[in-house]
Amino acid sequence: MSVLTGFEKRDSNHLMELIKPDVVRVEAAMRFDIDSLTDQHDQLLMEVLRYGLFNGGKRFRPLLATVAARLCGETGPDIYRLAMAFEYLHMATLFHDDVIDNADTRRGRPAVNKAYGMVAAILAGDFLHARSMAIIGECGGIEALKIFCLATSGMVDGEFLQLRNTTNFNQSEEDYFTAITGKTALLIAATTEIGSLAAGGKSMERQALRRYGSNLGCAFQMIDDLLDYLGDPNTTGKPVGNDLAEGKMTLPLILAMNRAELQDRQHLLAILQNSDLRRKSLTEVTGIILKYNGFTDTKTKAEEMIREAISPLEIFSRSDQGRDRMILAGLAQYVLTRKK
Amino acid sequence: MSVLTGFEKRDSNHLMELIKPDVVRVEAAMRFDIDSLTDQHDQLLMEVLRYGLFNGGKRFRPLLATVAARLCGETGPDIYRLAMAFEYLHMATLFHDDVIDNADTRRGRPAVNKAYGMVAAILAGDFLHARSMAIIGECGGIEALKIFCLATSGMVDGEFLQLRNTTNFNQSEEDYFTAITGKTALLIAATTEIGSLAAGGKSMERQALRRYGSNLGCAFQMIDDLLDYLGDPNTTGKPVGNDLAEGKMTLPLILAMNRAELQDRQHLLAILQNSDLRRKSLTEVTGIILKYNGFTDTKTKAEEMIREAISPLEIFSRSDQGRDRMILAGLAQYVLTRKK
Repeated sequence: MSVLTGFEKRDSNHLMELIKPDVVRVEAAMRFDIDSLTDQHDQLLMEVLRYGLFNGGKRFRPLLATVAARLCGETGPDIYRLAMAFEYLHMATLFHDDVIDNADTRRGRPAVNKAYGMVAAILAGDFLHARSMAIIGECGGIEALKIFCLATSGMVDGEFLQLRNTTNFNQSEEDYFTAITGKTALLIAATTEIGSLAAGGKSMERQALRRYGSNLGCAFQMIDDLLDYLGDPNTTGKPVGNDLAEGKMTLPLILAMNRAELQDRQHLLAILQNSDLRRKSLTEVTGIILKYNGFTDTKTKAEEMIREAISPLEIFSRSDQGRDRMILAGLAQYVLTRKK
Repeated sequence: MSVLTGFEKRDSNHLMELIKPDVVRVEAAMRFDIDSLTDQHDQLLMEVLRYGLFNGGKRFRPLLATVAARLCGETGPDIYRLAMAFEYLHMATLFHDDVIDNADTRRGRPAVNKAYGMVAAILAGDFLHARSMAIIGECGGIEALKIFCLATSGMVDGEFLQLRNTTNFNQSEEDYFTAITGKTALLIAATTEIGSLAAGGKSMERQALRRYGSNLGCAFQMIDDLLDYLGDPNTTGKPVGNDLAEGKMTLPLILAMNRAELQDRQHLLAILQNSDLRRKSLTEVTGIILKYNGFTDTKTKAEEMIREAISPLEIFSRSDQGRDRMILAGLAQYVLTRKK
């Protein structure tokens, strides 16, 4: 349990200091890339891209790619270019997600689909999608491209699974893990694996970093799903109860449904089947989930996955790898304790 | 003018016979690919893909890639796999276009966004987009991928130019050619160039096939824009007057606007600025375009571009290239005379 305790404000500050140089360089690489495109592309497209891309994102994915590449021996500036591709794909999916959800805001200001319209959001997403693939192919070769495309396809699968399951309130834990693996974990696993691949990492190193990414991605999504019930809107910037309002079955609710006594279960079902009730019953549903340990057991599972993420990193045991290994472990702990 | 005359029903039948074996093989390659994906991907996604992909499309782009590759010496079955990627990207853009236009039908039946909903249409488009890139990278290498991504980016540029110009009724011929190059010609040029590249074509061959594709693509779009005014809905399967109703400035109308006397010009502007009038004034606007030779001059320009498309093919002069050269020339003539 040692990895999971004692991650305090002090550690968080230390982590931020460790990652800052990389985040700054990724940001600079993105600005340089977008500037270099400006003369060749439509001015409105470029405006939309700047608006959507530079909004204070955490650059979590590029950071993972950068650190993974460095752990496998690559230290040149090319890693920032490769890393940027993961942010592009991530943003492309966010643009499309916000169209799909008809979202109003993203990071506290109008989402691209609201600021520039649906058409611009779909097209700018397509542009970033294509550009990310081109960069991955250029920096990581065909094998990297293959892994990347498998991750994208897997994301679409995950979304479709969710689409098919929208009115299925009797989901298993397995359904949930299949969906979050596709939706989140595959791309994060691809990020760390491709970082390693592009740096010429050995098979063992690639596998270790893939396992790290995959487990980290799952835990990340699980905490996200917890915050949707328990987060503080002032900190997360998002209202609570979205998932319930949409009838989306995430792990806390799935656990409660599967464990509830008949009466509670019928009550939950009645709420879930009525979209008005879903919007009004957050407190009540939260109470039932609490009763059946849905939140604590979700947290425990996320902690397990974080341990599974950190454990394979042991192979990076050289002293010059200490700093980057500390970053990956720190990010994993941050995922668990994050409030937003 | 010889290439442009005498392309009668008989020639069209002959062309169809020449291309049939390739079209059948491309279709088979696509079915094989989709079948091979079925076990690994979401069942609803696969249903949407089958629905959207197998609807009697002409497979124009894969055919161009196939013939270009063969002209450059590649005769193995791999060319059909490569060719398929161009249909995938084309369909991906159609799925997204239909979402953007909120289209009801495609090829006489509900469009994907109507049959399965907007979310499914966006996601299935993203899936095909990723898959097409993976196949291009796999079959054509990184250089092919680069050309392909430039074409996709160019398509987005073309769409954005159109988006910016929606209320600009004073467009130049140059604006029009920039837009259709991005929207249509770049991808067709990429198709023939990558076909050549993947077959190991010489630089001269690649250039010739790129010029063919680029000119063919422009001519194709110009005829499309003519048919939007003059086509027979029973033959095209689409109502006439769509572009006018949307206020979309295509070449016939641009020519008329730029040439019209003050009174006609003001009258056209008054119609264009009012969406109700635009929907009601097709006959009247058609009359004004006729008066200023907007249709005949569009047709003449398309004929010029078809000559520009066919002329570089002269370098493929070996007797064993005759059949494929005849197909490309025939397709170009077909584009000019097509009624749908």
